Amino acid sequence: MRDEFIQHLPEIKEELIAREKAFDGNFLHLTRDTVKTANGKIRSREYINHPGAAAIIYLFDDETTLLEYQWRQPCESAFLEFPAGKLDPNEDPLVCAKRELKEETGYSATDWVYLGRIHNAIGYSDEKIELYLARGLTTGDQALDDGECLSVKRVPVKEVFEMALNGEITDVKTLIGAYWLEKWLKGEMPVKSL
Amino acid sequence: MRDEFIQHLPEIKEELIAREKAFDGNFLHLTRDTVKTANGKIRSREYINHPGAAAIIYLFDDETTLLEYQWRQPCESAFLEFPAGKLDPNEDPLVCAKRELKEETGYSATDWVYLGRIHNAIGYSDEKIELYLARGLTTGDQALDDGECLSVKRVPVKEVFEMALNGEITDVKTLIGAYWLEKWLKGEMPVKSL
Repeated sequence: MRDEFIQHLPEIKEELIAREKAFDGNFLHLTRDTVKTANGKIRSREYINHPGAAAIIYLFDDETTLLEYQWRQPCESAFLEFPAGKLDPNEDPLVCAKRELKEETGYSATDWVYLGRIHNAIGYSDEKIELYLARGLTTGDQALDDGECLSVKRVPVKEVFEMALNGEITDVKTLIGAYWLEKWLKGEMPVKSL
Repeated sequence: MRDEFIQHLPEIKEELIAREKAFDGNFLHLTRDTVKTANGKIRSREYINHPGAAAIIYLFDDETTLLEYQWRQPCESAFLEFPAGKLDPNEDPLVCAKRELKEETGYSATDWVYLGRIHNAIGYSDEKIELYLARGLTTGDQALDDGECLSVKRVPVKEVFEMALNGEITDVKTLIGAYWLEKWLKGEMPVKSL
């Protein structure tokens, strides 16, 4: 299907004219590109440089999973989320997923399934998040980052599926994780490799 | 379910100490908050100020929908997306959805269903996107923004559902739109109001 769109790429592609750093903050780093649009206009495109991230959907044998409840200051509220973390420079997403699993919840997993990639803010960020399913879980010690406060709970996947529809979950990686987990449990998720 | 998490809010909530503008670009605007974490640490939180957005899932009587194919310079590639647009200041999301529908594809709709809200970058943006289903569609003239190049196609919803699982769609509003549309068609989507 996508091929039918790809033939239109020349009509929409933007050509990079110039690139500069726009902002270097404590946490956020921005680039400003000057581009020529397909119809010849010169435009400025500002966006966040993000290292990418990995998100982990735990699946215990009793069909429960782990959800975190975490404060997110940009939205001034707390969110239900599948555990996730930013990649270190040049880090493999699966290595990151295993590290985050251990750091945020203390668990290890013996069986990993790659579910897929999402782009969460294509208008102003180059971030992509790789989603993994983790099975064969064994418990350990939690080792949170300094200043990281969160609450973790084991929740039946059926309740996650309900919350993904009724408005209780609004975080995108968690919504899409629920979607793909439900499909995977039904045997409807295509096998993928990163 | 969410209530069981909410009782833990005092253990995770961050207290706002100070707020300043961090960056004012041509397109992006950043705030920097200083917060006190629940365990007493002082931390800096930088994030994008976003007006919010509305995304529209068209549903024609023959179970086709509209997908756009659009260049996204932050990722230096093109994406398959449901039509969406940023809110004007203080604009009602449904008014925005109707405006975008007309501007990007030239259609009008007589029947609107609110599907729900998503937060797409809770680590560094206050953006939220409201998702609507539009039915009773009649065609008109396309009136794109100056310099906006995109390709629009009518696609069977079944093919969208396939692409949402096989990796051809990675944009989050489009993935979650496909998820909720499939549930809505099965009568499994709770009725919501904004």
